[in-house]
Amino acid sequence: MKSYRKELWFNTPTRRAFVNITGELEKCLKESGIKEGLLLCNAMHITASVFINDDEPGLHRDFEVFLEKLAPEKPYSQYAHNGYEDNADAHLKRTIMGREVVIAVTEGKLDLGTWEQVFYGEFDGKRQKRVLVKIIGE
Amino acid sequence: MKSYRKELWFNTPTRRAFVNITGELEKCLKESGIKEGLLLCNAMHITASVFINDDEPGLHRDFEVFLEKLAPEKPYSQYAHNGYEDNADAHLKRTIMGREVVIAVTEGKLDLGTWEQVFYGEFDGKRQKRVLVKIIGE
Amino acid sequence: MKSYRKELWFNTPTRRAFVNITGELEKCLKESGIKEGLLLCNAMHITASVFINDDEPGLHRDFEVFLEKLAPEKPYSQYAHNGYEDNADAHLKRTIMGREVVIAVTEGKLDLGTWEQVFYGEFDGKRQKRVLVKIIGE
Repeated sequence: MKSYRKELWFNTPTRRAFVNITGELEKCLKESGIKEGLLLCNAMHITASVFINDDEPGLHRDFEVFLEKLAPEKPYSQYAHNGYEDNADAHLKRTIMGREVVIAVTEGKLDLGTWEQVFYGEFDGKRQKRVLVKIIGE
Repeated sequence: MKSYRKELWFNTPTRRAFVNITGELEKCLKESGIKEGLLLCNAMHITASVFINDDEPGLHRDFEVFLEKLAPEKPYSQYAHNGYEDNADAHLKRTIMGREVVIAVTEGKLDLGTWEQVFYGEFDGKRQKRVLVKIIGE
Repeated sequence: MKSYRKELWFNTPTRRAFVNITGELEKCLKESGIKEGLLLCNAMHITASVFINDDEPGLHRDFEVFLEKLAPEKPYSQYAHNGYEDNADAHLKRTIMGREVVIAVTEGKLDLGTWEQVFYGEFDGKRQKRVLVKIIGE
């Protein structure tokens, strides 16, 4: 069994952002030399997400509205977590979007559907944060 | 390490539907010959879900009400994604329900709890769509 | 390929509770002897969750408020599932929080970010329930 590990780093200029990382994951997979197996990609921070959906700007605006409805950023005082911090909403938003994805590796490729694109979802940005890529297989 | 791959296809007669696929996954596992490992099952479409819950019709009606409250289908014009499409709500509903499940394989069986059943969750049906089953192990 | 399996049991005194199980998972990993691979940890019940977030009591109160807003426990009669049961809200809450986490194993350790802690999320407690830990790798 082979195993591969890499960290991807992000520093988004806005509090919230979606970054398409599909190409980065393809590079990792190529580097790993693994042909059959599983790829895990997870946020290493609890106010960020890795998720799969469409790379369509309209949909990303819909996600923003949807997440703000379910877990609004403001007023900060509505959350017990926001004593020394202001990011409770980011913990909740990331919970809805998910921490991680597991992707099949088949014949050396990410085994994704036609429209599946992998995103880093940032909900408390403007600082260095990272994502873990771990691949196991043969 | 062994590896197994199969696509399951669906074409639900309604826009939204839950299909119990536990039996299909058991067949895949038997076909694979794998006794110890992990099974990944994911929707290959971004308006569908694979999730684990109870096979109880009342609960499925509750899910419908719950999802319509959080991400209502109509009016279509409320979503920026719905320029040429009408399925933005399906992208959001699938996000809540999740893209994938990972199931342990132990002694050649799906290692599920007593009431755990695996479902294909369709949120934009009436057309051919598929699910990926990938199993790795020994 | 090595493989390891363990069940963790819980009986929380309250209907809802979050239990930090990071230490338990570290013990499992040590027991397994696996140095590189993947660890799956999932609830075996469909009214419970395994998730990763911050071990901060204020945030846990925020989760309680958030989940009660999205899927309120009462009135019980609002849910079709609640004919013989009263736990429909627990099925919905667990859906938001997620069934499982997959964690990378690197150099014999859980490959977690600085603040990542693993929790058992109980939404219908006061009885014996269990979580599955499955590790594969080398």
